[in-house]
Amino acid sequence: MKNRQVAIAELPKERLTEAHFAVRDADIPAPGKGEVLLRTVLISIDAAARAWMQGATYRDAVGPGDAMPCFALSEVMESNSDRFQAGDIVTSENVWCDYNVLPAKKLTKVPDIRPLTHMMSVYGVAGRTAFHGLVGVGRPIAGETVLVSAAAGAVGCFVGQIAKAMGCRVVGIAGGAEKCAWVKDDLGFDACVDYRDPGMFKELKAACPDGVDVYFDNVSGQVLETALFLMNERGRVVCCGAISQYDKAGGTGPRNLPGLVVVKRLRMEGFIVSDFAREDAAATRALQTWVSNGQIKVIEDVVEGLENTPAALIGLLAGENKGKRMVRVGPDPA
Amino acid sequence: MKNRQVAIAELPKERLTEAHFAVRDADIPAPGKGEVLLRTVLISIDAAARAWMQGATYRDAVGPGDAMPCFALSEVMESNSDRFQAGDIVTSENVWCDYNVLPAKKLTKVPDIRPLTHMMSVYGVAGRTAFHGLVGVGRPIAGETVLVSAAAGAVGCFVGQIAKAMGCRVVGIAGGAEKCAWVKDDLGFDACVDYRDPGMFKELKAACPDGVDVYFDNVSGQVLETALFLMNERGRVVCCGAISQYDKAGGTGPRNLPGLVVVKRLRMEGFIVSDFAREDAAATRALQTWVSNGQIKVIEDVVEGLENTPAALIGLLAGENKGKRMVRVGPDPA
Repeated sequence: MKNRQVAIAELPKERLTEAHFAVRDADIPAPGKGEVLLRTVLISIDAAARAWMQGATYRDAVGPGDAMPCFALSEVMESNSDRFQAGDIVTSENVWCDYNVLPAKKLTKVPDIRPLTHMMSVYGVAGRTAFHGLVGVGRPIAGETVLVSAAAGAVGCFVGQIAKAMGCRVVGIAGGAEKCAWVKDDLGFDACVDYRDPGMFKELKAACPDGVDVYFDNVSGQVLETALFLMNERGRVVCCGAISQYDKAGGTGPRNLPGLVVVKRLRMEGFIVSDFAREDAAATRALQTWVSNGQIKVIEDVVEGLENTPAALIGLLAGENKGKRMVRVGPDPA
Repeated sequence: MKNRQVAIAELPKERLTEAHFAVRDADIPAPGKGEVLLRTVLISIDAAARAWMQGATYRDAVGPGDAMPCFALSEVMESNSDRFQAGDIVTSENVWCDYNVLPAKKLTKVPDIRPLTHMMSVYGVAGRTAFHGLVGVGRPIAGETVLVSAAAGAVGCFVGQIAKAMGCRVVGIAGGAEKCAWVKDDLGFDACVDYRDPGMFKELKAACPDGVDVYFDNVSGQVLETALFLMNERGRVVCCGAISQYDKAGGTGPRNLPGLVVVKRLRMEGFIVSDFAREDAAATRALQTWVSNGQIKVIEDVVEGLENTPAALIGLLAGENKGKRMVRVGPDPA
């Protein structure tokens, strides 16, 4: 068994590049008392990883020499805990690596639903983030208009499909004509507007003739500023991410904040998926229902090979993925 | 009976001055069917009036030649409606004037609680805005830290006193050492920091050793940006006003929005007092309780004479008032 890790060589000041990472060989420590040896199957590629490189967020900051943290799905190879046994499928905070030893208390056993990629996408953090953010924070009602940015992305593609299933008018924002067409035609959004289009505001206004009741914000920045102008009174802004800002130092905030929050009596609310852990079972049941009746298509973007994790993250930040991006490090267990 | 109106001579582009207003004589129309003749007793002076001059908000924009809109308390002189009779005390949207005729359906009869100034301050929009914004939107719990800007202002002075009565640690932000001392010593806040002090962030941090759970924002801009850095996870920002922005064209928003809303899972929510009309009776009962047991001091700032309304508003925007500012146009009814 050979183990590799992908570590941070240098922290990025602005744009993230492959030069900020280095692949290194590493030992596979033997699991101690209460510990478990894991084989990485899938690594989740998330825009938030870029934020971790900017300083402490809801997790500690990372620095040069650290193996790059991530969320991963793994197979238990060897267990010194009576809570786990070889062959179990677990998720955890982990690092970009082939093998790792972690304390059993840091692992969550998940059902062995095949393909395992679904546990990373629709039934994983992406799908639950979409569900909890939209249903728990945004609280749309059938007939309302839901706007979602990064509509072709891991979370956005589910947000829009869930909102459609709930009876809302759904408008997406994505980058490029091809992606917008895909969001509309393949995902079934009512409309999708290209944020690179200089006429974005007019197009959004035309796509939302009754205004916007819920805006699910994955990007912040200029797109958020534009969306705020279209919000209806008592509208809700679900603050899920700020991908447009992760690759920048400094910058300015939307000029209409908090002015329009006051004038339109908006609610802007941030969350992380674990805030709604009590509702996870309900979320999974709802998602399974919509997947099985065809109202949700499971969109996944699987990159092969641990050595390609830096490129996979850099590409995600550049918006090249459709649906949930993950890296396959090893095969599904037999 | 002589009637005067104060009208808008010209819309301000940046700083509001007396040259933007003109006093003019006006007729007193006879009330038609379903109409009521009102004598203005007290005019509420509100920072929001400046925002009405910038474009449509939750009310229509105002323009040159229009009598300046306001909220006022009046005595009914003559009524062609069976809902009102001479001598009744009513509140309404009105304009800066001595007399006016309005449809009865636009008037709200209020209890004749003396001094009538209290119906403009603690039992009026200011007190109810403080109560509903803090209790209904911010939802502080005893032991939490509540931060409020414009702490010496009409709303802020009540927000802090209500939060103290609810068992919170209360920190104010105000302009100038004298005002800060008054907020702390006379109003009973635990601390008050001068926003003009270059060391504001450090002083606020020292005044909020456990962070901030609820920030009641009356000013937005740089103060909001600073407060966001001090918010605890799951903190709430009550968006009540943006007085620091009303006198400016353009400008930029806080750089940490919505970044910190995501990272700290904050809730930012705007409101206007009428959103909570169903809770008005509860608010008045609570406020009367706290006034009668001495936990709330009723702070009022009364300017004499209709002709001084422009100066009263300009001075309010410059922060010269302590507590609720109003203009006395005529005497309380006998």
